[in-house]
Amino acid sequence: MSRWKPDAVGRLMGAALALFDEQGYDETTVADIAGRAGLTRRTFFRYFPDKREVLFSGAEHLEQVFAEAVKQAPEAASPMQALRAGLAAACEVFAGVHPYARVRARVIAANPELQERELIKLERLASKVAEALANRTASTSLAVLAADMGARVFHRAFAEWVANDDPDALGPTAARMLDDLGALWDDRP
Amino acid sequence: MSRWKPDAVGRLMGAALALFDEQGYDETTVADIAGRAGLTRRTFFRYFPDKREVLFSGAEHLEQVFAEAVKQAPEAASPMQALRAGLAAACEVFAGVHPYARVRARVIAANPELQERELIKLERLASKVAEALANRTASTSLAVLAADMGARVFHRAFAEWVANDDPDALGPTAARMLDDLGALWDDRP
Repeated sequence: MSRWKPDAVGRLMGAALALFDEQGYDETTVADIAGRAGLTRRTFFRYFPDKREVLFSGAEHLEQVFAEAVKQAPEAASPMQALRAGLAAACEVFAGVHPYARVRARVIAANPELQERELIKLERLASKVAEALANRTASTSLAVLAADMGARVFHRAFAEWVANDDPDALGPTAARMLDDLGALWDDRP
Repeated sequence: MSRWKPDAVGRLMGAALALFDEQGYDETTVADIAGRAGLTRRTFFRYFPDKREVLFSGAEHLEQVFAEAVKQAPEAASPMQALRAGLAAACEVFAGVHPYARVRARVIAANPELQERELIKLERLASKVAEALANRTASTSLAVLAADMGARVFHRAFAEWVANDDPDALGPTAARMLDDLGALWDDRP
């Protein structure tokens, strides 16, 4: 007999994040999280396989948005234009969640296991973007490298965004970083 | 009472690689490796903390060579020229070991845990290169991104090298990939 729980996912995420931040990730159990959210362990496991995935549950959505925007770029768009469109769309996903993102970043920075997980998710993001870019570039390896760059620029812009106060800086930071990176080749003869 | 064992490290590495490839990484024990090399477990543990590190023991040397070549580039060299020099030096490390590298790649491709380890090593490589580049770029985040890119280009060129027959292709492949990547920005207005 279960009552309807409005926004159980959001409550569990908020509770998990608060507890990870307050008392440490390793020290927090699923029972703690469910308790703080006013829900049961059973409800927790209806939405998440384990406590770690609470922190990474948005990764698939991000991958889809980034890759879809790359695919949807006009046929005549260059690979770089498609990548820019994907990057901008990915940044839009985080509109309004700067405070949450900052706490999450603090939790991850405190735990090497979570940092490794973050890297693996970043790798998956890059591989989805590479698939989306593949028919726009001269070779698969170039699509893969361009996607790596897009994912890395996103990752570094995100890190700069959570380290600073401006909640609207993510998109502009990512666009600027991508431009700065390209300018490194301006020394070509 | 231990006898002198010429090239124990080389013998252990060769034995480990052969066994990982023949019977699987998970199925191979340190005792198997030592036995195949004609050495004892104790000798194994004098050189390696565990069987996994046999596959990654060259990572630090690679980091040093790559980073050192970046640092040693002439003061007037652009960040991209320094990165190119580092990449070329890193590729030189693998002269003569194409057959070994191919088997190692096969072993790693068969095991997700090893792939994750490889990614973490790649991340460490990038961070060493970023340190070496830092005083050449306008910002730390640009050094970090450029180093990420250098490490990624190395990684992808390496993957292409082990997938193909030419033992001398690593350096030229890496240089070409870096150029191709830069050319993606040529659509700038």
